[in-house]
Amino acid sequence: MINAVGRDIPEEILEKTGKEVFQGVHHFDGYTYRKHGPLTQAVINSEGSKLVAGIHDVLVKCGIKDGMTVSFHHHFREGDYVVNMVMEEIHKMGVRDITICASSLGKAHDPIVPYIEDGTISNIYSSGVRGKIGEAISHGKLKGLAVMQSHGGRVRSLVTGERQIDIAFIGAPTCDDYGNCRGIGGNSNCGVLSYAIADSLHADKVVAITDCLVPFPNFPAHISMTRVDYVVEVDAIGDPKKIATGAAKPTTDQRKLMMADYCTEFVVNSPYFKDGFSYQTGVGGASIASTISLAKEMKERNVHMRFGVGGLTKPMCDLLINNQVDCLLDTQDFDLDAVESVKDLRHFRISAGQYADPFNKGAVVNKLDFVILAALEVDEKFNCNVVVGSDGVITGAQGGHPDTAAGAKCAIVITPLLQGRIPAICTEVTTVTTPGESVDVVITDYGIAINPKRTDLIEAMKDVDLPFKTIEELREIAQSITGEPERVKFEDRVVGVIESRDGTIMDVVRQIKPFEFSEE
Amino acid sequence: MINAVGRDIPEEILEKTGKEVFQGVHHFDGYTYRKHGPLTQAVINSEGSKLVAGIHDVLVKCGIKDGMTVSFHHHFREGDYVVNMVMEEIHKMGVRDITICASSLGKAHDPIVPYIEDGTISNIYSSGVRGKIGEAISHGKLKGLAVMQSHGGRVRSLVTGERQIDIAFIGAPTCDDYGNCRGIGGNSNCGVLSYAIADSLHADKVVAITDCLVPFPNFPAHISMTRVDYVVEVDAIGDPKKIATGAAKPTTDQRKLMMADYCTEFVVNSPYFKDGFSYQTGVGGASIASTISLAKEMKERNVHMRFGVGGLTKPMCDLLINNQVDCLLDTQDFDLDAVESVKDLRHFRISAGQYADPFNKGAVVNKLDFVILAALEVDEKFNCNVVVGSDGVITGAQGGHPDTAAGAKCAIVITPLLQGRIPAICTEVTTVTTPGESVDVVITDYGIAINPKRTDLIEAMKDVDLPFKTIEELREIAQSITGEPERVKFEDRVVGVIESRDGTIMDVVRQIKPFEFSEE
Repeated sequence: MINAVGRDIPEEILEKTGKEVFQGVHHFDGYTYRKHGPLTQAVINSEGSKLVAGIHDVLVKCGIKDGMTVSFHHHFREGDYVVNMVMEEIHKMGVRDITICASSLGKAHDPIVPYIEDGTISNIYSSGVRGKIGEAISHGKLKGLAVMQSHGGRVRSLVTGERQIDIAFIGAPTCDDYGNCRGIGGNSNCGVLSYAIADSLHADKVVAITDCLVPFPNFPAHISMTRVDYVVEVDAIGDPKKIATGAAKPTTDQRKLMMADYCTEFVVNSPYFKDGFSYQTGVGGASIASTISLAKEMKERNVHMRFGVGGLTKPMCDLLINNQVDCLLDTQDFDLDAVESVKDLRHFRISAGQYADPFNKGAVVNKLDFVILAALEVDEKFNCNVVVGSDGVITGAQGGHPDTAAGAKCAIVITPLLQGRIPAICTEVTTVTTPGESVDVVITDYGIAINPKRTDLIEAMKDVDLPFKTIEELREIAQSITGEPERVKFEDRVVGVIESRDGTIMDVVRQIKPFEFSEE
Repeated sequence: MINAVGRDIPEEILEKTGKEVFQGVHHFDGYTYRKHGPLTQAVINSEGSKLVAGIHDVLVKCGIKDGMTVSFHHHFREGDYVVNMVMEEIHKMGVRDITICASSLGKAHDPIVPYIEDGTISNIYSSGVRGKIGEAISHGKLKGLAVMQSHGGRVRSLVTGERQIDIAFIGAPTCDDYGNCRGIGGNSNCGVLSYAIADSLHADKVVAITDCLVPFPNFPAHISMTRVDYVVEVDAIGDPKKIATGAAKPTTDQRKLMMADYCTEFVVNSPYFKDGFSYQTGVGGASIASTISLAKEMKERNVHMRFGVGGLTKPMCDLLINNQVDCLLDTQDFDLDAVESVKDLRHFRISAGQYADPFNKGAVVNKLDFVILAALEVDEKFNCNVVVGSDGVITGAQGGHPDTAAGAKCAIVITPLLQGRIPAICTEVTTVTTPGESVDVVITDYGIAINPKRTDLIEAMKDVDLPFKTIEELREIAQSITGEPERVKFEDRVVGVIESRDGTIMDVVRQIKPFEFSEE
């Protein structure tokens, strides 16, 4: 069945997942549903400790068995130990057909690939996957499906009960013996626990895993004891060196700096740039550079930001330090400056649900004026791909891309016209992850294209000195340089689903065909 | 059917409420249930305001109709305007058979009595009622039942879905146009919104009513926009002078000071008085005096408190100021000092659920060492009555009494032996509200009784110079002074139910019989 971005979703996948095809970003506005309540076991005694001796014991207490769904959060990023330590124990116990429901998975989790291959893990829900897990999925090693969810879409799937977690594992930098978790402090400081909050609210069993047990009450708790069944103390939940990779270095790449300048010029000339505006940006070099150049313009023009949202990095936190923004709303910290900034009283933690769940009564993204994003590919309909590489292998994550693009009044995607020898602006993206309907502007090093449906922005920019082009013109320039690249060949088998933030199917990902030299 | 505190609960009431009789404080420890999820309407657009013109309009938007349940919180105490303003509009609209589910109702709500009498309101769930509402209920004016719930029990009833709220009204001292509510700031500063948090989590429709609209985002939100459907701005949500009644004045009543000294002497000689202990006290004169005298002993003996819990007043906040306690966990502020103290970073807001819900995975009360409580009556089985006056009229509230008594390792009830000419220590309380099983010590001006089942405490006190007596001795002294008082006469009709914190029935309250002079 063809969906609203023109992708043909196989009937077999619609049946298997029970999902509908994507019908447009606002299709579910006003939709009413009943929130999912988890099974909960009451604790009415004064014994006062939830400590359990180890991962094995807690799995037994939680009644781990074949076919269960276990969940994880990814605030420890490339330094995470929790996924591997839990999955290793589940594997040892001989449990099979586990569904992993993670907020994201990365290279740190390469060690679980054998558990995919041997059937311990049979389905994966995640924002995305990188490294060897992505390769394993794209090569058809996962028995079931890999479903890629946006940060908001993941919360929606938990809140509606579409996805039900049997056991949630929460890596907690600090925790008390009754389960009050904080993302800050201890040895594995990750700042916030935003992605894990939905898990704690909707999973049947919730296990806190910590390497820093502190006295009760560990307040203000980022996740409350009232939702935690057990606490396990381990030697280490992460590698602090890899959790926050250090202060983001301003890029010196002239191409990125030029795109950042284009972006800032566009922003300051748009109708939303005025006192009290709101702003989010990603962690790409050009995005970070655009925050730095925007800060300069704000100062010169005496324009103040009301709130910044993230995934945060140093340049966003600098806005706070320099009093150029009233407050920051934080779902994830990408560098040590951001982790440190959490202590600032104007730096607020928000849950992934508050940030981006399209099915709550109004998420923060709905209040965004600007979001600055990146993409692997953008096509002529402004559809973006941020998950599947040009070689057909799953290698990225939806993150908050479709959430913020849908919510922001002005969603800007920055991408160089060519990614190496591959055109980033193309006729049709390999996989649609964010619908063009949500994307307002594409900025490349060869020019800027405004989505034709944004006649208001086209009008606002008519006297602005920027290299405006149509998206078709950008695509033609790219192709004139590289030629039309040979399309990657896929098998028929669907290995992954790109789930829209509202739970419908945006696109599918198929198993890649081993590369063969063309016969001519 | 006779319950675990010996009360005969009429079959008719068990059928009508679908409830079981009380079977002991720990009967439901380990009980597993599914949490109730409310109906939720998704907001997927960038329009960005939830403002509605007035109470009438918001009632229409929420689909108000006969038989619905509406909820309120009582942080504005005797200064609350919200209940009356909403009920007046509902009455004007001719809606009938409304169930009010309030965290508590007081004298501020006398104006709704006509709506009880005319059938606009037919059932009331509340911690308690005071003033004319109590009189109306006890005189049989309410068509249905008045169900008295503890603070924790109320949350349990919402979390389990036993009680379902159609529309929750949240008086918010400050609020933004997207529904982020805070208890602090504005004109009607009440400090915290703890009781309303369960309503926001479990009601189908949630309306924030504010008299101080502030810019988005009103963070840190005490209640998140993600759970609020509409925002209504009104002239005033409360009378600031009556919200916090001013600093609690230390009592000069010698009898209360003596009981406070007894209490402190008992506490410091008990095994739980050591570095890191936890403590809660109520707002009665003797309770407040005991906090003051305890602070002195703590200083002299160099013993430090880990956390204090409340319902907070100045003497508890003074412990924080003087660094005698690490932190305070706050559900309600009783005076301006407590409201002011909320700004202290060691003064933490907790929800009523975190505080006391017996059905979550472990409430704060489970971690209490001491709680100091008051009571209208205590009987020979240590059962307490805090709801029904000796004249048979409902005049008090359960509050956190049964919750903290159940959770604390040492629950101390302070009461003068005589309340006026009525013995407070009696053979049988008029109504059981907290089971004797949870009460460890009763302190009166005529002596102290330890619950015989606490052989450990009796042993710990054997060399302590305090006037220990049995509870029977205390009862006899009281009776020797007053004689056995004539028991209040009741009609057969049950007008109220004392709900145990676990949802079973502790006792019933019957309609009072008009007083008649005895014929002899």
